[in-house]
Amino acid sequence: MDKSPNEEYDVIIIGGGPAGLAAGLYTARAKLKSLLIERSLVGGTIAIVDQLENYPGFPIGGSGLELGKLMHEQATKFGLATLYADVTSIELRDNQKVVKTAKSDFITEKVIIAIGTKRRKLGIPGEEHFISKGVSYCATCDADFYEGLPIAVVGGDNAAVTEAIYLTKFAAKVTMINRGHRLRASSILRERASSYPNMEFLFGTAVEAIEGGDVVERLQLRNVKTGEKSTLGIAGVFIAIGLNPSTGYLKDLVPLDADGYIITDDKMETAVPGIFAVGDIRHNSARQAITAAGDGATAACFIEKFVGKYGHLP
Amino acid sequence: MDKSPNEEYDVIIIGGGPAGLAAGLYTARAKLKSLLIERSLVGGTIAIVDQLENYPGFPIGGSGLELGKLMHEQATKFGLATLYADVTSIELRDNQKVVKTAKSDFITEKVIIAIGTKRRKLGIPGEEHFISKGVSYCATCDADFYEGLPIAVVGGDNAAVTEAIYLTKFAAKVTMINRGHRLRASSILRERASSYPNMEFLFGTAVEAIEGGDVVERLQLRNVKTGEKSTLGIAGVFIAIGLNPSTGYLKDLVPLDADGYIITDDKMETAVPGIFAVGDIRHNSARQAITAAGDGATAACFIEKFVGKYGHLP
Repeated sequence: MDKSPNEEYDVIIIGGGPAGLAAGLYTARAKLKSLLIERSLVGGTIAIVDQLENYPGFPIGGSGLELGKLMHEQATKFGLATLYADVTSIELRDNQKVVKTAKSDFITEKVIIAIGTKRRKLGIPGEEHFISKGVSYCATCDADFYEGLPIAVVGGDNAAVTEAIYLTKFAAKVTMINRGHRLRASSILRERASSYPNMEFLFGTAVEAIEGGDVVERLQLRNVKTGEKSTLGIAGVFIAIGLNPSTGYLKDLVPLDADGYIITDDKMETAVPGIFAVGDIRHNSARQAITAAGDGATAACFIEKFVGKYGHLP
Repeated sequence: MDKSPNEEYDVIIIGGGPAGLAAGLYTARAKLKSLLIERSLVGGTIAIVDQLENYPGFPIGGSGLELGKLMHEQATKFGLATLYADVTSIELRDNQKVVKTAKSDFITEKVIIAIGTKRRKLGIPGEEHFISKGVSYCATCDADFYEGLPIAVVGGDNAAVTEAIYLTKFAAKVTMINRGHRLRASSILRERASSYPNMEFLFGTAVEAIEGGDVVERLQLRNVKTGEKSTLGIAGVFIAIGLNPSTGYLKDLVPLDADGYIITDDKMETAVPGIFAVGDIRHNSARQAITAAGDGATAACFIEKFVGKYGHLP
């Protein structure tokens, strides 16, 4: 899809996950000239989810890819344009914004940033292959699939321990695996974690490979001190070593929190008028498809009546 | 469904619209013992919507009742219990809450208030009959159905004028009908409204009846001064005379804004720890099914890991 230079839009949405797609549905349906710019594939984080159970109203067991496609078709039907390109920067020019991509530049009045986050990966054999087949990055999303089964959690910070404690409600046994010799989590969380009879800890241990057949069956482990190898039989592994908000070109544009997430008000607007942030990239997002879609629609609702000749709220 | 007195829950959700149903799906799926209390019919405000076009991922043209039913079945499948009853009060007792209904009282650690709002009605013949058949209370929801058609907007405050201006993008002609002799909206909005060539105003005019066949065709009007009657042919009428947040028993419990909506933080928690508010009843909600569902899931996500023996976030 080729665009002439400096084409103008009312709204440009960056990122084609549930947040961006919901925003695009709402702005396009409100007759705002809307462009969605997506790097690779619509659907965002859920595009890799085989069985989605927790998007309210979506049939249990449908795939995330399918939901993303439905959302995209719906928004497109109301006039949302889509460009597959990498955004390289956003610049402020008077009351407008210039969104630059490798292919072309665009002028717009409002920008909705919906770029999501990347889950930090271990980068070991089997990890990519078994995503949604025993490898998970989100306990809220996937705990339910491991009812009564043995699982592992890789990581040791507050978020990892919180995920592990949550998983004790579902799994037969939760083994926390950590390279260090103690958890980095707060003392209150460490103490709480040690009180669960179905929680075990493996310290000084690295995961070298994730193996199995159709689904994950075991982890190959190595003692980081002695080099001794071992195998741990599990049905699933939750990798909780952090998220990477990819806010490179946004750093000097909008205020971020200490972890790199974008701060907004409850209308999803950042401190820069006309620049909104929605979904996983937003500070305090619950990072679920449904909450991201809600964010996107919220931003669009507050934008839709107050763009261009329709003016700003008095 | 009979409940024994003082049955205990982890979470009680009040209201069975998209916000409450999404919250219930998430808390039940997180293995929290969850009870949804609904006054009449699950689905909430969308239950009266014939054709839903803007719930991301839901087939265009499906009904709101159908979506509500799907959401309820999904949440019930994960263990959400439902009680049909009127909540009469919520009381604080130590760290717990007592939710009282005409049928029984319940003890719970967390309460999610998802009671929505009621659209204020004109209370004239034809209004109820033509809901979703030409009578609408939400321009964002329904503007799209009136492309190129003549419509009326009843009301005269800021919200009504904003809706009317928005509708000029869709309708062939928008007639604002007002009992008073001028709009009550701010001067900037009044001025802006008068600048649209397809906007007209009828002051000192009351709507006496909404008439038509399968769908709305005309309004019966009366000049409030002279008593003179007239007829206005339209394809749709947007009634924008305000919302009624029904926060009667909540008034002394949680802080409300000037219009009676509940104030929360971005985790949907009110100033009273353990009491959350989600969906249309929340201050600054965008009042859409998708944003309400996002709210509900957000509250549940922040609750799910920190209830009961799983403790509170350090």
